[in-house]
Amino acid sequence: MTDSQIYREVTAANETYVAGFGDKGALALPPARGFAILTCMDARLDPAKYAGLSEGDAHVIRNAGGRASDDAIRSLVISHKLLGTREWFVIHHTDCGMELFTSEIIGDLLTEDLSTAGFDGKTWSNPEKKGGSVAGQYINWLTIRDQAESVTHDVRRIRSHPLVPGSIPVYGFIYDVRSGRLIEVPAATDAGRIAA
Amino acid sequence: MTDSQIYREVTAANETYVAGFGDKGALALPPARGFAILTCMDARLDPAKYAGLSEGDAHVIRNAGGRASDDAIRSLVISHKLLGTREWFVIHHTDCGMELFTSEIIGDLLTEDLSTAGFDGKTWSNPEKKGGSVAGQYINWLTIRDQAESVTHDVRRIRSHPLVPGSIPVYGFIYDVRSGRLIEVPAATDAGRIAA
Repeated sequence: MTDSQIYREVTAANETYVAGFGDKGALALPPARGFAILTCMDARLDPAKYAGLSEGDAHVIRNAGGRASDDAIRSLVISHKLLGTREWFVIHHTDCGMELFTSEIIGDLLTEDLSTAGFDGKTWSNPEKKGGSVAGQYINWLTIRDQAESVTHDVRRIRSHPLVPGSIPVYGFIYDVRSGRLIEVPAATDAGRIAA
Repeated sequence: MTDSQIYREVTAANETYVAGFGDKGALALPPARGFAILTCMDARLDPAKYAGLSEGDAHVIRNAGGRASDDAIRSLVISHKLLGTREWFVIHHTDCGMELFTSEIIGDLLTEDLSTAGFDGKTWSNPEKKGGSVAGQYINWLTIRDQAESVTHDVRRIRSHPLVPGSIPVYGFIYDVRSGRLIEVPAATDAGRIAA
C-alpha cells in the first residue's frame, strides 16, 4: 500500500521541503497575522498563494464549497477564542463542483454505487451499480446554486452564530479560477460588518 | 470595514498573484493527480509546500485538528464520488492547539465570554467576563490527546464509513512543525489499507 506512485511523490516532495525548511521550526502556534480564511477544497485554489500567506501567518479552513458548516464554525471559534484571530475571510469560487449537483443527486448516486460517477457536462451516472449505501440520503451536502448567494448566506450564518463575537469583521469574496482574482461580494461583506 | 490593514494586504497580495497567473486559468476542475489531503488549519502548515502540490493537483480539506469530522467526510466523499480522487492522506501535526484544551474547557470559557482567552502555558482564562453563550457546551470540539492516537482514530473512522469504498487507501501521517517532516503513523496507515 505504501508504494503507490502518489505516496512516493508526496513523501519525496516532503524531503525536498524539509531540506529547505530553514528557521520555520521556530514559528509560534498562534497565527502571526491574526486572521483566518475559509475556502473551498478545490484543487485549483492555493490560498497561501492567492492571498499571500507565509507559513505561520493565518489559519486556513477548507471543505467542499468553502461552506460555513458546523465544523467550519467549530474551527473559526477555536481560531478566535483560543488562538486570537480577529478577522475572517469567506472565499467561494467560480466553476465550483458544488454547483453541479444537488443533495438528492449525490444521495441517489451513492445509494446505487460508491465508485466515481461519470459526468457528461449535464448529467451524472454510475458506470458500475454494485450497490452503495443509503447513508448519503441523510446528509445535507451543502451544494451551491449561486456563488454570490452562497457566500452571502455563509457570512450571515457566521455573523449570527451565538459563539461568534460581533467584533470580528467577516469579508465575503469569490475567487475567479480563470484569472486568480479575488472579487468581493458587497452583500456578503455588508452582512459581515462588525455589529454596532 | 474594508480598510483594515489585513484586508489591504490580502487584496494587494492577490493583485500580485493575478499578475503572474499565467495559464492556470485553463486548469480542469477534477484534481489532476487524483488524491486528497485532510489536515489541520494550523497557520504553520502549508500542505501545498509540504506535500509538493501545484494548483490543480489535489483536494485539500482543513479544519481544527485535521479531524475526520462529518464535514470532512462529506468533502472526502464528494472528492471521490464526483471528482475522482483515489487516495487520501490524513495529516495531523506536532504541537497542535487541539492538545491544549478539552471540550469542557472551551465550553466553559465560551459560556463566560466570547473574546480571546489568555493561556499561561497550562491554564486558559478569560481576561473579560461579559457573558458568552452556552452553545459551546453542546459541541464536540474534537480535541486531541495524542497525535498518533488521533490520526489512527480518524483513519479508522474514514475506513469504516458506509460511504467510503474499500478501494481507497488512506495514509496516516504526523507533520513535525519543527522540521517540516511528514512522519508516517504505521498503525494509522494499516487501518487505512485497502479492504481485502
